[in-house]
Amino acid sequence: MDIKPGALLQHINSPDDLKKLSKDQMNQVCDELRQYIIDVVSVHGGHFGASLGVVELSVALHYVFNTPYDQLVWDVGHQAYGHKILTGRRDNFVTNRKYKGLSGFPKRSESEYDTFGVGHSSTSISAALGMAMASHYKGETDRQHIAVIGDGAMTAGLAFEAMNHAGIAKSNVLIILNDNCMSIDPNVGALKEYLTDITTSHTYNDLRDNVWKALGKLPVGKQFSRQMASKLEASLKGMVSNSSNLFEALKLRYFGPIDGHNVTHLIETLSDLRDIPGPKILHIRTVKGKGYELAEKDQTKWHAPGLFDKVTGQILKKTYEIPQPPKYQDVFGHTIIELAEQNDKIMGITPAMPSGCSLKYMMEKMPDRAFDVGICEQHAVTLSAGLATQGMRVFCNIYSSFMQRAYDMVIHDVAIQKLPVVFCLDRAGLVGEDGPTHHGCYDIAYMRCIPNMVISAPMNEAELRNLMYTAQLDSNGYPFVIRYPRGEGVMPEWRTPMQEIPIGKGRKLKDGEGIAILSFGHPGNFAASAIRDLRAEGINPAHYDMRFAKPLDEELLHEVFARYQKIITVEDGTVVGGFGSAILEFMNQHGYHAEVRIMGIPDKLVEHGTPKQLYEEIGLDANAIAEVARQLAKTGLLVTR
Amino acid sequence: MDIKPGALLQHINSPDDLKKLSKDQMNQVCDELRQYIIDVVSVHGGHFGASLGVVELSVALHYVFNTPYDQLVWDVGHQAYGHKILTGRRDNFVTNRKYKGLSGFPKRSESEYDTFGVGHSSTSISAALGMAMASHYKGETDRQHIAVIGDGAMTAGLAFEAMNHAGIAKSNVLIILNDNCMSIDPNVGALKEYLTDITTSHTYNDLRDNVWKALGKLPVGKQFSRQMASKLEASLKGMVSNSSNLFEALKLRYFGPIDGHNVTHLIETLSDLRDIPGPKILHIRTVKGKGYELAEKDQTKWHAPGLFDKVTGQILKKTYEIPQPPKYQDVFGHTIIELAEQNDKIMGITPAMPSGCSLKYMMEKMPDRAFDVGICEQHAVTLSAGLATQGMRVFCNIYSSFMQRAYDMVIHDVAIQKLPVVFCLDRAGLVGEDGPTHHGCYDIAYMRCIPNMVISAPMNEAELRNLMYTAQLDSNGYPFVIRYPRGEGVMPEWRTPMQEIPIGKGRKLKDGEGIAILSFGHPGNFAASAIRDLRAEGINPAHYDMRFAKPLDEELLHEVFARYQKIITVEDGTVVGGFGSAILEFMNQHGYHAEVRIMGIPDKLVEHGTPKQLYEEIGLDANAIAEVARQLAKTGLLVTR
Repeated sequence: MDIKPGALLQHINSPDDLKKLSKDQMNQVCDELRQYIIDVVSVHGGHFGASLGVVELSVALHYVFNTPYDQLVWDVGHQAYGHKILTGRRDNFVTNRKYKGLSGFPKRSESEYDTFGVGHSSTSISAALGMAMASHYKGETDRQHIAVIGDGAMTAGLAFEAMNHAGIAKSNVLIILNDNCMSIDPNVGALKEYLTDITTSHTYNDLRDNVWKALGKLPVGKQFSRQMASKLEASLKGMVSNSSNLFEALKLRYFGPIDGHNVTHLIETLSDLRDIPGPKILHIRTVKGKGYELAEKDQTKWHAPGLFDKVTGQILKKTYEIPQPPKYQDVFGHTIIELAEQNDKIMGITPAMPSGCSLKYMMEKMPDRAFDVGICEQHAVTLSAGLATQGMRVFCNIYSSFMQRAYDMVIHDVAIQKLPVVFCLDRAGLVGEDGPTHHGCYDIAYMRCIPNMVISAPMNEAELRNLMYTAQLDSNGYPFVIRYPRGEGVMPEWRTPMQEIPIGKGRKLKDGEGIAILSFGHPGNFAASAIRDLRAEGINPAHYDMRFAKPLDEELLHEVFARYQKIITVEDGTVVGGFGSAILEFMNQHGYHAEVRIMGIPDKLVEHGTPKQLYEEIGLDANAIAEVARQLAKTGLLVTR
Repeated sequence: MDIKPGALLQHINSPDDLKKLSKDQMNQVCDELRQYIIDVVSVHGGHFGASLGVVELSVALHYVFNTPYDQLVWDVGHQAYGHKILTGRRDNFVTNRKYKGLSGFPKRSESEYDTFGVGHSSTSISAALGMAMASHYKGETDRQHIAVIGDGAMTAGLAFEAMNHAGIAKSNVLIILNDNCMSIDPNVGALKEYLTDITTSHTYNDLRDNVWKALGKLPVGKQFSRQMASKLEASLKGMVSNSSNLFEALKLRYFGPIDGHNVTHLIETLSDLRDIPGPKILHIRTVKGKGYELAEKDQTKWHAPGLFDKVTGQILKKTYEIPQPPKYQDVFGHTIIELAEQNDKIMGITPAMPSGCSLKYMMEKMPDRAFDVGICEQHAVTLSAGLATQGMRVFCNIYSSFMQRAYDMVIHDVAIQKLPVVFCLDRAGLVGEDGPTHHGCYDIAYMRCIPNMVISAPMNEAELRNLMYTAQLDSNGYPFVIRYPRGEGVMPEWRTPMQEIPIGKGRKLKDGEGIAILSFGHPGNFAASAIRDLRAEGINPAHYDMRFAKPLDEELLHEVFARYQKIITVEDGTVVGGFGSAILEFMNQHGYHAEVRIMGIPDKLVEHGTPKQLYEEIGLDANAIAEVARQLAKTGLLVTR
C-alpha cells in the first residue's frame, strides 16, 4: 500500500526545506506530519502516542533551530518519529523498526540529526549538557543544545543529577519538559503532582503571562543583542525567583507552562529562548496521542498498539482456532496474585512497567501490596531491600536491560546483605524491534559474578510458576533472579499446580548418545525442537534443562560429563561470562575435558528486527542448534564460528 | 594504650541507658562521645570528620526515638561511629575497621540497631521508605523510620527518586538532611547553592521561626495526641506551603534549617516531629569535624586522616630513607595533565572524588577541562558520552565499586555508541578497611560481557602511563577501561617516557618450564615475587603480563598453550566470569586442553581488614601463588580449593 505524504510534507527533505515555508504554513505541516505518522504506524507498526504528542514541538524545533549544528537530544527516542520524517527519512520511514530498516530510536550512525542514541529514558539532559560543555570549551557560544524530556523520564535520578549540574554549568542548555502525565502507564510520584499544581495555579500562570508580556515588548529575533538578552534575563530573573519553583531552586530559569500543541506560540517561544544564554527549562503541556481520539483516551493501550485500522481504530489481532500459550508476562501477573493470596508477606514492585510486566493485575486487586514507583529502577531495588529487611517477600519486576540501571543496588543493598528479594527480569534475551538498547543480553553475566545470587530461568510457564513459588518460600534465603523473555511461552494449559524446585537443581529431559545439550531457560524449547528434527538423521542428543545458571547443579553435571564428550550449551544471553562460561568454569574446577560449543548471543551489538529474524541471524534457533549437533556428530572436531 | 570513656559514657551500654539520663546531661554526653571518637580514631584510625559532625544528632536520635523498634538508617555509614558507640559497641570500638573487628559502616549482622548496610551513598531514603511501607502495611503506625543523609549524598539520583516516591507514600518517614556542604571534597551543584540560599535567607528563617513558635505553644510529648498532631499539621502546612521550597514541591513537609550542634534544640525538634505522621524532612546545619579545630578547618584532609597526635594534630606518616613508589592515583593525576598539555581534546571528569583519585591537580591547573560533578556516577558517565560525541577525549575516573552505579550508562550511552570514553577504575581489587561494599571485585566480569569494551590493567606505573597514553590517541576508537588498585605501585622512578601499547597486546616477562603464569594488572607483581621465591626450589614458571582482559592477545595465548600444559591465571577480581574465565573461553574456542588454576577473588563476600590480611586470607598473595605452582609442579594434578 502506497502511503502519500501531504502537499507540503512531500517536499520537506530536510529542516532547510521546512525553514523555506512561512510560519503560517506550520499548522498544515503539523497536520500532514501527524497524518503521515498515523498512516505509516497503522500499517507498519511502532510506537504511536509519544510521537503524535510532539508533532508541533518537532516542527517548531526544526523551524527555529539550526539543526544539526544546534544539537537536539530526544529523551526515550520513540517520540522522535516526526523528527526522523523531517530530517530526510520520510520515504524510508515505512522501514521503521523493521529488520535492516530504520531504528525506532534516534541513532548516531543513521543520521547527523540524531545526536545521541536514546532508548532508555532520562539520558538527554546529561548528554546535551556534555555537548554544551564541549561547545563552551571550543568557544562555539552561538551553538544551542536542546534536551526534550518527558515528565515521566524526569523522575529518574539521572535527570535530577544532570539538572543539578546544568544549573551551575555555564552552557547553552535548553531543557524542554514535555509534560503529558504519562510514561507508558500514567505517571506517579510527587513531581507529577507538583507539575499539575503549577500548571493549574492561577497565580502562577498570571506570573508566567507577565513574563511573556515582557518578552513580547522586546524586539526578539536575530536583531536581539546579547546585551539586550542580558537585560531581559535580569528582569526575568527578578520576576521568576519570586515564584521559587522546583527548577528555579536548581538554578534553572523556568519558563511556562505553555500549550505544546500551539505551533505558532511554540515557535515564538523557542525563538525567544534561543537568544537567552545559559541553562533554562521550558515546560510545555501536551497530550500523548494528540490528534487521534482513541489514542488520547486510552494512552497506555495506544503507546505501541501494533497494527490497526486507522479509520475504525480497531487494533488488529491475529485470531486462533485453538488455545495459544500465554505470555510469560501474564503468567507472572496472575501467578503473583495466587501466591500473594496464600502468603501475606508478598509484595510487588515495578518501576513504571505495570502494563508491560502485568503487575497491573495485582495493583488493581491488592493496591496496598503492589506498587508502580515510576521510572526509577535504582529506587525500586533499594526500596525492595528495605521491605525485605522487614520480612516482606518482594517480587521486583524490572526488564533485563533496565536492571542495568540498578546494578549497584542489586550488589550493595540486596546481595551483600543477602536479602531474599526476587528479581523478575522480564524481556530477557533479544527483545526484537526495540533493538540493541533494549536487548536483555547481559544479565546472566552481570548477575553471575555477584556472590549470594541465585539465577534461574524457566523453560516454560509451569517452570516459571514453580520458580516463583520456590523463591517466595521461607526456606529461600537468597536474592533470586528469574529471567524470562518477552512474549509467549509454550503451554496453553498453564495453570499448573505449583511445586518447589530445590535451588540449584536442573532436570534431565531426555537421555541421548554422544552429545548432550545443556540449556538455560526458554531457548531450551529451541533445543527440544532441534532434537526432534535430528531424530530422522539418527542423531540423538541428550537434553538437560539446567534451570539455574547459579548455583549450578553439580550432581547433574558430573553425570553429564561422565556420559558425554560433546556438549552444546544454549542460552539467550551473551556468550561472554554467561551460562556457557559457568559450565567451562565447572569443567575446569573438576578437570573435565569435553568438546563444548557455547551457543548464545555473540559478543557484538545485535540490531533490531523480529526475534525470529534476529535469532536466525545470530544462529540461535532450532536450525542452528541442529546444525551444530550435526557438525559435532559428524566430525567430532570443533567448529569455530 | 587504654582509652577511657567519660563518666557518663562509660555507663551507656544501650540507648536505654542514655534515656535514663536527663536532657540537661546530654551536652556532657556529647562532649564525652566526641572525645571518645577523637581518642580512638587518633590511635586506631578510621573516618573522622563525618562522625564528629553528627555527635549531637546521634545522641538526640537515640534519646528521642525508640530504637531499634524505630528504625534509623545512616546514609554513607562512616558517619555512624557515635551511633555504634551508643548502641553497645563502645568497648569494642577500638577494633573498628580492623580485621575481624567492627565494620566501619553499619552492618545488619553486627547489631539490631544497624537496620541497613550502608557504604555507598544515597541509599538511606529508599531503604527507610521500604521499612516504613512495611510498617504501614503491618499496621505498625507508631513506628518511626529515619534516614540521615548528607547534602552531598542528596545530589545522587537515587535520593531524588526516593524523595519523589516518599512524598506520595503514606508512611512515617523522617528524612534528616545533614547539611555540611561537604562530601569528601566540598560539594558542588545547584542543590548546594540552593541550601545555602534558604539557610541565609532572612525571610525564610523568619518563617521557620514562626513555625517553631507555633510548635512551642503546643503541649508536645507523650501526651500529644494524634488529633492534635493532625491540627498542628494543618496549620504548619498552611504556613509552609507559602514558602514553596524544593522539598515542599516534592510533597515533603520541610522543617528547618536548625543548628545541628545544639543538642537540646535537636531533642525538642525531633520530639515534635516524632508526633507528626507522614513523610517529612528536617534540615540541620552541621560542621564536618565539629569540635576538633584542625578538622573543621581542612575538612577534606581530615575526612579520614589516618593516625594522628590528637594534641598537636600532627598526622603520623611513615618516613622512608629511600624514594618510595608513588600511588597509582597520583600517577593518574599527574599524567593526565601531561597528556592534556599535548592533546587539547582531553577532559577529566570525576563524581565527587577529586582528592581520592587525584584529578584535583588538573582541576586546579586546568579548571575549564577537569570537573568534579558531585556524587552522581550516572550523570558523570552520560555527560562523558555527550562530551565524546563532540570529539573530546574524556578520562572519567570512578572507583570500581562506584562504577556499578553507572552500569547502564556504560552500556547504553558509551559502549552501544562505541564512544571512546576512557574509564579509569580506581580502587579495583580489595580496598581493605572499607570492606565488602567498597571492594572492586566485579568490574572485570561486568565490563567484559559488554561488546566494544577494551579492558586493561597496568602492572606498574609505567604501564599505567602507557595505557593512558594509548587510550587518548585518535587511533583508539573504543571505550577503554583502565583499572588499578588503591595505593602504591612499584616504581619509585615513575616519570617514564610514554609509548603506545597496541590494543590487546600483552607482554612476555619471562620464559619458563612447564608452568605459565598469566597475570592481569597489579597482582602480576605478586606473581613475579612468587617466581623469585620458587627459583631456589627449581620451579621455573613463565610469566606473561596480559595487560588486556579484552580483547585478549590471542597470538600470545597461542604461544602459551603451544608451550605450556599448566597454567595459572592471576587477577584481583572475581573468579566468576573474570579474566580467568576469559582464558577458559579462549581455550574452549580453540580446542586447547591445559590444566588451569584460576586465582582471583573467590565468589563470596570478603570482609574488611588490611589488603595484605585479606589477600592472604583469600589466597591471592605471592605465597599462595607459589604454593599453587608447587602443587602443579609436584603432582601435575588439579588441586581444588
